[in-house]
Amino acid sequence: MSIRIFITGGTFDKEYNELTGQLYFNDSHLPEMLELGRNLVPVEVRTLMMVDSLEMTGDDRELIAEHCRKSKEDKIIITHGTDTMAETAKLLAQKIKDKTIVITGAMIPYKFGSSDGLFNLGSALAFVQTLPPGVYVAMNGRCFNGENVRKNRETGVFEELKV
Amino acid sequence: MSIRIFITGGTFDKEYNELTGQLYFNDSHLPEMLELGRNLVPVEVRTLMMVDSLEMTGDDRELIAEHCRKSKEDKIIITHGTDTMAETAKLLAQKIKDKTIVITGAMIPYKFGSSDGLFNLGSALAFVQTLPPGVYVAMNGRCFNGENVRKNRETGVFEELKV
Amino acid sequence: MSIRIFITGGTFDKEYNELTGQLYFNDSHLPEMLELGRNLVPVEVRTLMMVDSLEMTGDDRELIAEHCRKSKEDKIIITHGTDTMAETAKLLAQKIKDKTIVITGAMIPYKFGSSDGLFNLGSALAFVQTLPPGVYVAMNGRCFNGENVRKNRETGVFEELKV
Amino acid sequence: MSIRIFITGGTFDKEYNELTGQLYFNDSHLPEMLELGRNLVPVEVRTLMMVDSLEMTGDDRELIAEHCRKSKEDKIIITHGTDTMAETAKLLAQKIKDKTIVITGAMIPYKFGSSDGLFNLGSALAFVQTLPPGVYVAMNGRCFNGENVRKNRETGVFEELKV
Repeated sequence: MSIRIFITGGTFDKEYNELTGQLYFNDSHLPEMLELGRNLVPVEVRTLMMVDSLEMTGDDRELIAEHCRKSKEDKIIITHGTDTMAETAKLLAQKIKDKTIVITGAMIPYKFGSSDGLFNLGSALAFVQTLPPGVYVAMNGRCFNGENVRKNRETGVFEELKV
Repeated sequence: MSIRIFITGGTFDKEYNELTGQLYFNDSHLPEMLELGRNLVPVEVRTLMMVDSLEMTGDDRELIAEHCRKSKEDKIIITHGTDTMAETAKLLAQKIKDKTIVITGAMIPYKFGSSDGLFNLGSALAFVQTLPPGVYVAMNGRCFNGENVRKNRETGVFEELKV
Repeated sequence: MSIRIFITGGTFDKEYNELTGQLYFNDSHLPEMLELGRNLVPVEVRTLMMVDSLEMTGDDRELIAEHCRKSKEDKIIITHGTDTMAETAKLLAQKIKDKTIVITGAMIPYKFGSSDGLFNLGSALAFVQTLPPGVYVAMNGRCFNGENVRKNRETGVFEELKV
Repeated sequence: MSIRIFITGGTFDKEYNELTGQLYFNDSHLPEMLELGRNLVPVEVRTLMMVDSLEMTGDDRELIAEHCRKSKEDKIIITHGTDTMAETAKLLAQKIKDKTIVITGAMIPYKFGSSDGLFNLGSALAFVQTLPPGVYVAMNGRCFNGENVRKNRETGVFEELKV
């Protein structure tokens, strides 16, 4: 069965607007990244929103949870801004118990040529295929339990809440 | 415990010699790639050889097996040319039963800017952390049993020998 | 004699801060770009400021003019944000009559991998070597008289004020 | 009037064939590079051949000269492999006296992400617009008289035959 990929935005998909000099969201680069990785795992991709995760609302998170719940695939990857990734993971961990959900993102936009996004996407795809049902965050090559993770804002890396 | 990474060469690490116009091996780009991916999984990297896998000999493969056998880490990633990756996997599968070994590589050199190597490295790191002892090939986002995989030379993709 | 290069900032040199998600200035990428272009024209590089050209003040422009006036080299390249490049060109054209000054910049930061900066730098270096004394803007492969150029804010391209 | 660009191959346009592991020629990347550089100088591009310049024959060079002679544009850029660029320049310098011809190329293929090609293309476009009739080689940010240049095979840089 296919793996479901939900896109919600985040640094992953930010681009540089050369007229305004601002970062913005256009289309997702996920299909291009999967092609670059020569991915042959069947995937179904759907964009749910395109937001900076600092601006993600409670309603947005409910929408994501609802889509995970209704998805016929039982393996799900969510691309997400890193700032509130842990918050979404916690909500999903409470609501969805019977599916393997891996949330991932990037510290540097894919379009900036030196992104960690391609590495993270590869790891997320591998984790979602091998881990038992549960909600996980895949960043820094590691896989965290969705209820026990935070982004360290000072260092920019993910770490366990309690080891 | 750390994950052991053995480097053997392959397309992954090929560079362009601007004086001769030939592709060649210099130092491995693996440390740079792990940094780019913001990897925080502890790894120990060692270069065993730097060869095109079409030129890998039986002795070379024995050397790789010997290093896997003696490695104190029980999770091992091997970067390897794609052309004879399946052959090495087969040999290792016969010789090493108590470790998780994931072999990966790339179709395009990392230095050429559009490599699948970063994606594959991310997936290999995830597979090696989650899979039970055995020998695997991680390519195209997928994970193959090391005794049941081949590279399709016409399409350039990896596939099961028998499904 | 060497060519003098003055760096003033602009999109050319913007980077992505992965902790804040903002664009910012760090060191200039100019030396790296000259190396990438295998440049062998002798150059002397000096950073005068690192500002977004929308924030460049009258005092900043006077400082640039002063440095151009005092420079012992009579061929000068200035890297500059595109938004007020034409304004600086106009001021310099009034003040400096005996040197060849070429102002250039980029629409996309060099670090974002798809920048026009390397192309523009190559053209600026060629124009400064071949044009008679005067102040010029080198963008879009073209060379404009510094007193007869503007950036079209809607299209992002440079054009003559009057043809 | 437009600038004529003739494509003859060379490192500039080499790509990596992921099935054979060899470098090869596919379509030229020149239009993509001009777009990346936001070029707005009118150009007419025509591919004359796609060869490694070490394999360029006398007939090939005659063909290039013939196209330069017949071209209605009097400003011409030729992209060319670096190894025999000087030889072609010499032939053209003998045959064409009334046009400005700038030959350029690259040490690293454009597709390899760290090419000098974009820098050289920018400089060639600037040189061809500003220099008087004659045949020139534009490499390393410099512009050489086509009858007084050679590629130093040991260092990979271009230099005058006699200074």
